[in-house]
Amino acid sequence: MKYENFHTFDVKAGDAIATVTFDFGTVNVQGQEMLADLNSLAMRLERDRDTKVVIFQSANPEVWVCHYDTELLKDMSTEAVSRDEAQLLDLQSVCERISKVPQATIAKLEGFARGGGHELALALDMRFAVRGKFKFMQMEVGMGILPCGGGASRMARQTGLGRALEITLSARDFDADEAEAMGTINKALDADEIDDYVNTLAQRIAKFPAESINACKQMVYESIDKPIEDALKAEAYWLYQATSKTPAVKRFQIADEQGLEHDMENQRNWEKLVMEVQDIN
Amino acid sequence: MKYENFHTFDVKAGDAIATVTFDFGTVNVQGQEMLADLNSLAMRLERDRDTKVVIFQSANPEVWVCHYDTELLKDMSTEAVSRDEAQLLDLQSVCERISKVPQATIAKLEGFARGGGHELALALDMRFAVRGKFKFMQMEVGMGILPCGGGASRMARQTGLGRALEITLSARDFDADEAEAMGTINKALDADEIDDYVNTLAQRIAKFPAESINACKQMVYESIDKPIEDALKAEAYWLYQATSKTPAVKRFQIADEQGLEHDMENQRNWEKLVMEVQDIN
Amino acid sequence: MKYENFHTFDVKAGDAIATVTFDFGTVNVQGQEMLADLNSLAMRLERDRDTKVVIFQSANPEVWVCHYDTELLKDMSTEAVSRDEAQLLDLQSVCERISKVPQATIAKLEGFARGGGHELALALDMRFAVRGKFKFMQMEVGMGILPCGGGASRMARQTGLGRALEITLSARDFDADEAEAMGTINKALDADEIDDYVNTLAQRIAKFPAESINACKQMVYESIDKPIEDALKAEAYWLYQATSKTPAVKRFQIADEQGLEHDMENQRNWEKLVMEVQDIN
Repeated sequence: MKYENFHTFDVKAGDAIATVTFDFGTVNVQGQEMLADLNSLAMRLERDRDTKVVIFQSANPEVWVCHYDTELLKDMSTEAVSRDEAQLLDLQSVCERISKVPQATIAKLEGFARGGGHELALALDMRFAVRGKFKFMQMEVGMGILPCGGGASRMARQTGLGRALEITLSARDFDADEAEAMGTINKALDADEIDDYVNTLAQRIAKFPAESINACKQMVYESIDKPIEDALKAEAYWLYQATSKTPAVKRFQIADEQGLEHDMENQRNWEKLVMEVQDIN
Repeated sequence: MKYENFHTFDVKAGDAIATVTFDFGTVNVQGQEMLADLNSLAMRLERDRDTKVVIFQSANPEVWVCHYDTELLKDMSTEAVSRDEAQLLDLQSVCERISKVPQATIAKLEGFARGGGHELALALDMRFAVRGKFKFMQMEVGMGILPCGGGASRMARQTGLGRALEITLSARDFDADEAEAMGTINKALDADEIDDYVNTLAQRIAKFPAESINACKQMVYESIDKPIEDALKAEAYWLYQATSKTPAVKRFQIADEQGLEHDMENQRNWEKLVMEVQDIN
Repeated sequence: MKYENFHTFDVKAGDAIATVTFDFGTVNVQGQEMLADLNSLAMRLERDRDTKVVIFQSANPEVWVCHYDTELLKDMSTEAVSRDEAQLLDLQSVCERISKVPQATIAKLEGFARGGGHELALALDMRFAVRGKFKFMQMEVGMGILPCGGGASRMARQTGLGRALEITLSARDFDADEAEAMGTINKALDADEIDDYVNTLAQRIAKFPAESINACKQMVYESIDKPIEDALKAEAYWLYQATSKTPAVKRFQIADEQGLEHDMENQRNWEKLVMEVQDIN
């Protein structure tokens, strides 16, 4: 898959990992150019059978993606709509499409991410942020709107209700440690450790079968949208989606021959074991 | 809006903030008087266009709201009902109505809150509690019932399943630090810092447009009750609900004229910026 | 109820607490024997009116339950199924049945729990794990499948989406402190404190009325599968389920006679009070 002709970010792909580096204007504003680029990126990722992990980072040392372009908001409609008339907004559609690409997606947050910028980060699978540099804010309540790039919908799915309400209603900055404590990010890291942490994680995931990665992530997203009985059936569905395309059975045959489950030494070394089995195809 | 003639609490309203101070008998028991007062309060808040934030505190230095009045329970029905026959209980209706008022609501928890008292706190948007003084308990399992003022329903929406089950099944006291770690409160604070913390938060929110506050909070509550696609449509619905009534567009026009998104200095100062824009009407 | 003739664990029941001690082969593999035993255990627990709490522990100092038997996976189907055709898998059915037994269930995790072993732990109500000994991993993504014993469905109900995705996609070990921070377990404990902690909790719950325990736990599980209005109705349903069978009313009559809610001293001592009332039958 060729990842070229983007205007707001650069993409390097290879060894099953793509790195998207935002680099647009002074502050990586999220305007029509970036939405078009993200939509085009999603379209390619959906068809890419080689890339398994996508890291989203910024070339700007202070800003990841700043926020939605206010220029686009100055002409927005001011007419109320009915529940039935409500249509997905462009930012919502793009974030949702990015959210469900078959790859594992990681936000490497080394600078500010506010408003739509932070909503894009929330639409990715995992988020890691740098202490002393990262800040996030949902300032929409102060601007007369609400986080409408999926932020109001996705926040409580990360943090629980009370903290989602505080974030959404206070329109203040939260730093990396606060974000970790509330659950909007997976982990706060020091500036000199985020590269290693994210790369190690990405390289680990990139060894695993693409169909399993997709099955795992789609199922985790489905899980909270369904009652448990329906969620369990979805698990079974995704299991056979995966096994119909991955060398799972062969791996288990070999594992069985090796007496995997009867060996205490193997139990101590599962972290290595799961990597060694990746060479079986 | 006049906030008078309450028997179980006092209300002071002004500068867009109302402060409800529970002060009833020895221990702020949650009986018919308090439920009637809370219902009447909710009715007024729903029509109040001036108040944007409501703080709930107690005049009693040891107790916020103690628990539901056991006198009301001694005559309760002991007949099982079918799923279809189950009707909302008074405490549930009142807590749910308070939960959805258009204002941002804050529980300032400086003393005990157990049973129905804690369930009322869970029905508010945000909770802050004092170390060394606050304790909460859901003791219902020990009394032969279950938390039925919304507590069994709302607990896991704050904490996740495992911790909600421990809270509900153990009927023990949890202090402020435990509450923060489990997620039932937003933050544990020292006794000498809670006033500043809650007032600063309330005053910040009180500057924002009332319609945005309402849109943000209703949407966060909706978010976890709906699959993501439906939640996103609800966001779009609430966006236009807000913009049809707030000066959002004017603010973005001015922000655009000021070149907001292209300025690194502005990005560093969004916390101030979002307050300065409140003067634009 | 007699708890005999199990092949993969031993059960000791008495004083309203049953202790299930896994002890099967070298590493407590989760094969057909264990699933059959767990199913048989659930069938008995569902009919047991004396046991109120079940503790699940291991005789193996290094392993709780290691993982699903890979031998069973080497012959699994590799045909994709439609959404409608997807049937519950054996491991899912057994875990779900164990999850909903009327007793409060506790995983006492003193060793490794990976794959299906960890999914069984997630199906229990509460989890406590020992620092320095416990590790968990969902390695399925690396094996070409996904956690399909309820793990993909239940993870985000404990941790929120981002951390569930990291756990499911990284296939790495997480220790007790990480598990506590992410929310997969209730609490990390030192090796010399877990016995006391779990026993104290179990003995406390074991004093409470069986019907209340069941009502509380079923309702907490229902809560996140339903919109708030429906969840509240379910609370009312479970209330009358409980009061139709427990001495709740009598307890409240006595509490009322004792002037419980008007006494500040009682408010300070609710932890004891809720235990004293257990002697009223």
